[in-house]
Amino acid sequence: MANTDSVSVRVFSLNCWGIRYLSKHCPQRYAMIGDMLCKEEHDLVLLQEVWSEKDYLSLKKKLSCSHPHSHYFKSGVIGSGLAIFSKHRIHDTFLYRYSLNGYPYMAHHGDWFGGKAVGMAVLSIGKLTANVYVTHLHAEYCREKDAYLPHRVVQAWELQQFIRHTSAGADVVILGGDLNMHPQDLGNRLLRAYTGLRDSYSETPKFDGCEDGMTLIADNPFISKKELVPFEKGIRIDYILFKGSSEMDIHCDYMSTTKGSVPDHPFPYSDHEALTAELRLDPHTPAEPGSDGQSKDQDCAAGKGAELVDILTEARTEVKVGLHCAERMRYTATRTGVMGLALLILELAIAAVPWLALGAEQPFPRTSFYLLAALCFAILLTTFLLYIFYTMELKSLQGAEDQMRLAIGSLQEKLRGFPLAQPHNAQRRPPEGQEPSAFDPEE
Amino acid sequence: MANTDSVSVRVFSLNCWGIRYLSKHCPQRYAMIGDMLCKEEHDLVLLQEVWSEKDYLSLKKKLSCSHPHSHYFKSGVIGSGLAIFSKHRIHDTFLYRYSLNGYPYMAHHGDWFGGKAVGMAVLSIGKLTANVYVTHLHAEYCREKDAYLPHRVVQAWELQQFIRHTSAGADVVILGGDLNMHPQDLGNRLLRAYTGLRDSYSETPKFDGCEDGMTLIADNPFISKKELVPFEKGIRIDYILFKGSSEMDIHCDYMSTTKGSVPDHPFPYSDHEALTAELRLDPHTPAEPGSDGQSKDQDCAAGKGAELVDILTEARTEVKVGLHCAERMRYTATRTGVMGLALLILELAIAAVPWLALGAEQPFPRTSFYLLAALCFAILLTTFLLYIFYTMELKSLQGAEDQMRLAIGSLQEKLRGFPLAQPHNAQRRPPEGQEPSAFDPEE
Repeated sequence: MANTDSVSVRVFSLNCWGIRYLSKHCPQRYAMIGDMLCKEEHDLVLLQEVWSEKDYLSLKKKLSCSHPHSHYFKSGVIGSGLAIFSKHRIHDTFLYRYSLNGYPYMAHHGDWFGGKAVGMAVLSIGKLTANVYVTHLHAEYCREKDAYLPHRVVQAWELQQFIRHTSAGADVVILGGDLNMHPQDLGNRLLRAYTGLRDSYSETPKFDGCEDGMTLIADNPFISKKELVPFEKGIRIDYILFKGSSEMDIHCDYMSTTKGSVPDHPFPYSDHEALTAELRLDPHTPAEPGSDGQSKDQDCAAGKGAELVDILTEARTEVKVGLHCAERMRYTATRTGVMGLALLILELAIAAVPWLALGAEQPFPRTSFYLLAALCFAILLTTFLLYIFYTMELKSLQGAEDQMRLAIGSLQEKLRGFPLAQPHNAQRRPPEGQEPSAFDPEE
Repeated sequence: MANTDSVSVRVFSLNCWGIRYLSKHCPQRYAMIGDMLCKEEHDLVLLQEVWSEKDYLSLKKKLSCSHPHSHYFKSGVIGSGLAIFSKHRIHDTFLYRYSLNGYPYMAHHGDWFGGKAVGMAVLSIGKLTANVYVTHLHAEYCREKDAYLPHRVVQAWELQQFIRHTSAGADVVILGGDLNMHPQDLGNRLLRAYTGLRDSYSETPKFDGCEDGMTLIADNPFISKKELVPFEKGIRIDYILFKGSSEMDIHCDYMSTTKGSVPDHPFPYSDHEALTAELRLDPHTPAEPGSDGQSKDQDCAAGKGAELVDILTEARTEVKVGLHCAERMRYTATRTGVMGLALLILELAIAAVPWLALGAEQPFPRTSFYLLAALCFAILLTTFLLYIFYTMELKSLQGAEDQMRLAIGSLQEKLRGFPLAQPHNAQRRPPEGQEPSAFDPEE
């Protein structure tokens, strides 16, 4: 199957769970990870949650022979936690910080402080240009009532935009990371459908690893089984995705995950399982000139376009839910702020009466007076900061929604331009008259 | 000169100075701008400082016939202020928010609240794909002691990264906006050298407008002459830049600016002058196969590479100055915070002594006690917020510096790979032995 021009690329991805002093056995696990990477010599190593730069630097030192090229992406308060190690020269890097990433006051969730982003590295694999992306999206803390869903959908939207717009000059595109989304989650479908990225787990003919490719499993000693309910065995939220170009075909020959333990070691590398994909790049072979080739291609494109419009509409709905929620929160903050201000004015008025009536006794004790005033000021300051924050959240959500609306309009325009394909998928499409109203781009 | 396959594109750019209720004659000026755009029918209109969405929407309504496609970019607290109007269909938009953009506590400068960014629109001009960018960088309030210089340099760095990485698939690239940089300022040189964008003012054979292409001039009635010192006549900080591709050549045939007034109107469109460039796109004509063609090309590439390394090194130095400054500010915030905490503990200790010695009298009056406690809390909160902010600033500066170091290393690697060009520019380059030390990428 492999021809002589084939180039093989081994990609590794792991969420390292590297919170110093908080994650269990952090230094020991980094030592294990370093040893393994040194031995395995993957072409590309994509790491997430390397929260401390010191840990990155010690890994860099350890891997200086096996992976002479590396980059650590800095962002947010703590950092993005993203790192790339490569056997191949990295020419250029670029970081895109997601516009939404949780709330700073949800400090126990910590995502906001991490400054979640997608890091890109442009590197040469032989004569080929590879755009390699590593990312980590906002965690899902409660699947039933996921307050962060609109944020994660916007992150997925921005991730696909970033990859799509920056990868036009690449022969091959590889994305690895912890997407914090199940395979069929909205953001994941949006990402795959829009970019054309393919999932190495779904594509590989040979797989060795956890059932259903899961990467957060009950068998991992660092995982509390409570967190996984109702997915008793585990979930798949880490991915290695890839796509080729008009010049290069790309295939996944083999994929593996760790299985919650590492032979000869008392604990695994992380609370997530590590992923390894063996990709093979071949020069593109043009499709055989068949009888119905062009029309089939157009059929396929029209089908994909229609699917994309559906997914985008779903995403837009989710963003609208987020918008509604952010508006409500901002309204609450405003109302509370106004109440704080009213209370302060009232207090000052009560205090001013005896002061104006010279010599009359103060109507309430000094202690209560100062405590109340301090409370009013605290309310005013907090609600002011919250107002600023929610306004920024609203702007980002509105921006994403605008872009989605525009994209839907443009896709529908393109779909109308597939007349050849019409006879083949006539059943899928509504009658001509109803079409424009289905998803009005100017809605 | 123009051939039959030529496509002509008229581009307009203006900083609208659209702060509702604060900018002078704001509604009247918007009405003037709308009327003029409606009449002039430019292909592309790139606006900055459209701070209110209402103003954008009323422009959109007015221009619905002349410019049926438009997009408003939302970001930050107030918005990015960026808008695009187009005669050609906009397929896709994308926004990159700069990681650094001044300080929120410099509220009178307001840049932070604007959420400065670069907006991109992908549109079709005939059969061509055009990537159009509109941006507005951080203002320069004092040229002698410009505290925002590192931020603006990082913005220019991110702008060039964004354009370079997103424009690979485009036939033509157009950037318009208020860069807040003079033509030879570091950020401007960095942008032009790295992206290959050409300045329409420098390239046009026919120009009608202010002396030296200035866009902020003393003759504009909205400009206070004090602000311009020491540039008595004015400065050039607004630009229309462009580049073609391997498929398309692009030229500027004509350029004009307004001159501080509008005929038949009592005041100009804005405090900035408006720019119009007439660009012509021609299918690329390959260079004539000359005797020394390849070697000359390589010479040129090597020369450009060396120039770029110099500019990048200069930018890196500026970012390091910013790093040093941010570190000092964070240190000051930390020290002040610690002092506030010490004061609070001291006060509590003094208050606790008589409380423990049951019944002894309070050592200082209640009013002072509560005021001092409130002050301590205010100091603690403020310094905590500042610490968070400066840490984020540091991360962004460090990130940019890392990326610049990597880019310098990669460019030097490439420069070493021009053996053919060596005899031609041997004089420019240091002796072989000294080379690696000149700009050590791992420094």
